[in-house]
Amino acid sequence: MTSKIRIGIAGYGNLGRGVQAAIAKNPDMELVGVYTRRDPQELQLASPAPRFAITELEQHTGDIDVLILCGGSKSDLPEQGPKYAALYNTVDSFDTHARVPEYFETVDAPAKAAGKTALISAGWDPGMFSINRVYGEALLPDGETYTFWGRGLSQGHSDAVRRVPGVAAGVQYTIPSQEAIDKVRAGLRPTLDTRDKHQRECFVVLEDGADAEAVREAIVTMEHYFDQYDTTVNFIDAETLAREHADMPHGGFVIRSGNTSDEQKQVIEYSLALGSNPEFTSSVLVAYARAVHRMNQAGVTGAQTVFDVAPGLLSPKSAAQLRAEML
Amino acid sequence: MTSKIRIGIAGYGNLGRGVQAAIAKNPDMELVGVYTRRDPQELQLASPAPRFAITELEQHTGDIDVLILCGGSKSDLPEQGPKYAALYNTVDSFDTHARVPEYFETVDAPAKAAGKTALISAGWDPGMFSINRVYGEALLPDGETYTFWGRGLSQGHSDAVRRVPGVAAGVQYTIPSQEAIDKVRAGLRPTLDTRDKHQRECFVVLEDGADAEAVREAIVTMEHYFDQYDTTVNFIDAETLAREHADMPHGGFVIRSGNTSDEQKQVIEYSLALGSNPEFTSSVLVAYARAVHRMNQAGVTGAQTVFDVAPGLLSPKSAAQLRAEML
Repeated sequence: MTSKIRIGIAGYGNLGRGVQAAIAKNPDMELVGVYTRRDPQELQLASPAPRFAITELEQHTGDIDVLILCGGSKSDLPEQGPKYAALYNTVDSFDTHARVPEYFETVDAPAKAAGKTALISAGWDPGMFSINRVYGEALLPDGETYTFWGRGLSQGHSDAVRRVPGVAAGVQYTIPSQEAIDKVRAGLRPTLDTRDKHQRECFVVLEDGADAEAVREAIVTMEHYFDQYDTTVNFIDAETLAREHADMPHGGFVIRSGNTSDEQKQVIEYSLALGSNPEFTSSVLVAYARAVHRMNQAGVTGAQTVFDVAPGLLSPKSAAQLRAEML
Repeated sequence: MTSKIRIGIAGYGNLGRGVQAAIAKNPDMELVGVYTRRDPQELQLASPAPRFAITELEQHTGDIDVLILCGGSKSDLPEQGPKYAALYNTVDSFDTHARVPEYFETVDAPAKAAGKTALISAGWDPGMFSINRVYGEALLPDGETYTFWGRGLSQGHSDAVRRVPGVAAGVQYTIPSQEAIDKVRAGLRPTLDTRDKHQRECFVVLEDGADAEAVREAIVTMEHYFDQYDTTVNFIDAETLAREHADMPHGGFVIRSGNTSDEQKQVIEYSLALGSNPEFTSSVLVAYARAVHRMNQAGVTGAQTVFDVAPGLLSPKSAAQLRAEML
């Protein structure tokens, strides 16, 4: 029996909580510390674990095999990614697609200099969806790739709804168009614009005395967020919101439709139906922590993405076991 | 512009033809030779390419970057796999699941000794389905994996039907149970036995004077092949068989259903809807030939499986391009 992989968690929001739950499902791993910017003694954990101030990460380099960075992409990771890649093997879920190349470089240099391995942008999109875009394009070079998201709660769009004057609370769901999906699945390789692919549905609790029609109008015409979509706004009370919209479901589809010859169409589809978006993302981060630990032991250092990680490295099983049981 | 990857094809049946078609879809590759046990001058190719007797492979080692072995798993590959792994980087579709560990060893030793890279058991099952079984289990360790095949033409079962006395010609389709798939997709993690998962449907042309009822009975009670399934036998004429059953469609689903916590269910699904089973398998082999060429250049030698190949290696795009465009 080899010793367990020692995991540290930096940041304890939805993602950090999910990572803690995922570690409990992986017997070859143990959680050795939750690091927080808050007062660690005040931090309420879902189950008991050592709690530390995040500043103590400077001292704990011998105690952690992989540090999972559970902060946000906007301000946490751009600072923490490079900083902790100089001290630990890391995994993060940096998800600002357009900034990935720049983020990669800022993490790669300190990780390489320190002989550490830093896996960036894991999760499901970026992450598993990205992998399936690459596989699809490589296996069917004459084809088209379509990504649909949902049905799922969008954090960014929910925030946008809540900023509208007159809105007390609310959530937004992204809904993929069944008609568009059916066309893609049939191998028709349709040209789809933004409005064809997704609808948006909002559930809004109004402030006392707010004008429902004005709120609806402000939402559906909001630039970038809603104006390019068909959007439905439903008004509900606070109890209904709490009862029916507390979960964070999400998911979607990556479909590659292509031809291997003039006569033959082929369709590859990868789909996720997630009861909890953050818990699934966390599960992905934890599986990649195992891979990062192994890659570092094998001498692979610097920044990595999911494209660089062989599937077998994610599994607790040995290569021989995988060949015998899973091929 | 780097030079093209030079591909050789060993064996020109359905798979070899598919590999030739797939190479034409990948501008970074070129077909440098089709090697056959038949008289090469008699070999009809789908499009022009150099033809050679398979014995000439002993002399052409400097001309080919990756040799794709397109023979069958029963007798061709057990002999050709080890033999050509000592001379070339190879890719094959060895698909006798139970014999993979043994086959791996017989290929690994000569490949390692010669500094060659030999990817075994590529295709879709084994292959892409295997990858998705590994990803699914690693991402949702508390869960169940279900593989459904079809709707698709099964070569082995069609052969079995054609061996029944009174059968002039025929094909067999494997059909996954929609009811079973629905249960799995709903995250119910059902226990399914063989009869619950798939049905079998046969289209049979009778010999003159054959007894239809006797043929039906012989098929549906055939041990291993049909007795554990609900099987339908349809009798058709030779023209209908030729017109409606000449394609080789196949596909299926790998579904992982699991829990990230007591409250939250997550479902991952990978599915293929293939117009042509051999053409898709060939496309997979060609993408893996690219990976094998790169792995060999990077010093990775010996036998490999799809579990050992990072997704990015399959793509003609560079790692930086993949990060910028596909993550």
